[in-house]
Amino acid sequence: MIRVGIIGGGQLGRMLALAGYPLGLRFRFLDPSPDAPVADLGELIVGAYDDPDALARFAEGLDVVTYEFENVPAHVARALERQVPVYPPPAALDVAQDRLSEKTFFNALGIPTPRYVAVDDRAGLDAAVAELGLPAVLKTRREGYDGKGQVILRDAADLDAAWQTLGGRPLILEAFVPYDRELAILAARGRDGSVAVWPVVEIEQVGGMLHRAFVPARSVDDILAATARGYVEIAMAELDYVGVLAIELFQVGDALLVNEMAPRVHNSGHWTIEGARTSQFENHLRAILGYPLGETDALGAIGLQNLIGEMPDPSAILAIPDAHLHHYGKAPRPGRKLGHITVRAADEVTRDERLAGVDAAACLASGRGSSSNLTR
Amino acid sequence: MIRVGIIGGGQLGRMLALAGYPLGLRFRFLDPSPDAPVADLGELIVGAYDDPDALARFAEGLDVVTYEFENVPAHVARALERQVPVYPPPAALDVAQDRLSEKTFFNALGIPTPRYVAVDDRAGLDAAVAELGLPAVLKTRREGYDGKGQVILRDAADLDAAWQTLGGRPLILEAFVPYDRELAILAARGRDGSVAVWPVVEIEQVGGMLHRAFVPARSVDDILAATARGYVEIAMAELDYVGVLAIELFQVGDALLVNEMAPRVHNSGHWTIEGARTSQFENHLRAILGYPLGETDALGAIGLQNLIGEMPDPSAILAIPDAHLHHYGKAPRPGRKLGHITVRAADEVTRDERLAGVDAAACLASGRGSSSNLTR
Repeated sequence: MIRVGIIGGGQLGRMLALAGYPLGLRFRFLDPSPDAPVADLGELIVGAYDDPDALARFAEGLDVVTYEFENVPAHVARALERQVPVYPPPAALDVAQDRLSEKTFFNALGIPTPRYVAVDDRAGLDAAVAELGLPAVLKTRREGYDGKGQVILRDAADLDAAWQTLGGRPLILEAFVPYDRELAILAARGRDGSVAVWPVVEIEQVGGMLHRAFVPARSVDDILAATARGYVEIAMAELDYVGVLAIELFQVGDALLVNEMAPRVHNSGHWTIEGARTSQFENHLRAILGYPLGETDALGAIGLQNLIGEMPDPSAILAIPDAHLHHYGKAPRPGRKLGHITVRAADEVTRDERLAGVDAAACLASGRGSSSNLTR
Repeated sequence: MIRVGIIGGGQLGRMLALAGYPLGLRFRFLDPSPDAPVADLGELIVGAYDDPDALARFAEGLDVVTYEFENVPAHVARALERQVPVYPPPAALDVAQDRLSEKTFFNALGIPTPRYVAVDDRAGLDAAVAELGLPAVLKTRREGYDGKGQVILRDAADLDAAWQTLGGRPLILEAFVPYDRELAILAARGRDGSVAVWPVVEIEQVGGMLHRAFVPARSVDDILAATARGYVEIAMAELDYVGVLAIELFQVGDALLVNEMAPRVHNSGHWTIEGARTSQFENHLRAILGYPLGETDALGAIGLQNLIGEMPDPSAILAIPDAHLHHYGKAPRPGRKLGHITVRAADEVTRDERLAGVDAAACLASGRGSSSNLTR
């Protein structure tokens, strides 16, 4: 029996395990919380990600190690690599953990991103604003996610407050991109360099957090799709990547700019569980184990909605035709990703109707206004 | 968090749990073996199915109890029912555990079965043979499965040997049915009496054990499909059934005879995991929890092959387009069901090509001859 170690025990680890048991895998997780969502789904080592003792117990007897979030300390991944294969390669962590490295990486490959300037002190912020103009977005270089660790600067009066909130850490100022919409491209790359790319995903964020995802994305012509595909293939080849890589994109007219990448399975790919021939979770595992990758085409028109803060009544969701509930086993808390729902349909109109039903059930639970008035 | 108890910890329990985590369920299993395939997938109480102490620990705090095999002692199910809802209803166990009760049950509902006579002693066997003629099949009334506990009687000289093998237990003699093929019909029934029926499945058995399954079954006209659907709906209504019920059928010309029923998820429904909009495992859980049932239509042309005795090389299987491996986490042993593979395709010709590829990989592993010469 092949033993897979996963650093991190959140919903991504949980969905990896659910995809991996049918492949005959066994799982061990490392997570600081004894209540991690994976707690029932394998052996859980409770410990900090840099606790040498926990890491030693974690690594013992594993066949391969992967991770479910990109803030695993890269030195930890490299230390583990001396005992057991670690995929995706730790070099991908170096790139993804620092917004400056990330943008430098893509630009060096000829892949456009928003313009950016590193900010190391208060004077550097003024210089960066002078260079990029306003509005612009000031972000921490490390450990930002789901819209956390960033402030939009609209005019010069915002700079002091932004500095007070974020200053003292390495920062980056990014030009504000008046994008038309956000897209994501996900691919898996095998140990043999084979690549499987899922269709382009259209994503809607609310408050910096993914809210809904749609496949196929509207009006994606062959050139746009090939461009997105090229970005992820070039990035994976450069990193000698193994596993699933997700890239979030801004579309501005006909141009695609890279917003950020995640060297792991990603929220914008959760629709693949029921919506694609092979899910991102299964293909990530196939990749790191050296198995052939599975097909990635979509099974119709697919929609996904995240469940944030409160879970809806399961009966309301499951009454919707071809709707699939994914509960992450987490305690409700405002702003927390607790689950998602995927709907399948033969056409986009039916998909959108089903998704509207999902949204009605979800917003009844959360007490928020319906998002059905969001631009689609 | 809803806690589901499952009596039995084999592959069916494992696939129930894999379908149930996304619904936000937690699982506790009762199984005599500490190495049960569910061991990593929830809390496992190790004990006999009639061990009062183990049963007390099992039942504590559960919201609902179900079972994954039909030989749970019915008195145990009834005792549990005093503490916690148990579905399917224990009355279904009474029917399914005894081949005589089972045939009596269906015939009383006007649903045909092979002709049969109860056999309680050696003289009774002679009388039964005189009534039904030969060939006929002598079976234990209880605890036979996968072709075990039965002997075919071809001529009078076979009776003594058959009696030596099976005598001393309650037996049943069944007329030998020269059937054209075997089919299965599966349905789920909710707490509210709603019913969802999957398409008719064509099954091929080898040595009394399911070998392959095909959906859609060849040349099933509306009348045949409605007949099969009627059988399962009538049986479920009579039992006030909740959960998935599987019925194996013999087709003889235009007639359908009930061979046997299983009051649980069933091998002939494993194709539903990838092959139907909602799997038998998810719909079983939806049913026992009182949730709405999911749609049951097939996602194309689907084929299934069991993996018996040895597991194939996963890479050989996963190289086949839209092939899905299900490993049960069991140690290899001759004649043991270790897993299954489901293939999907847009049409039956492609499905059969993919299934032939699966069979080539599987028989390479098992050392047996290819089954591609089996009648299809």
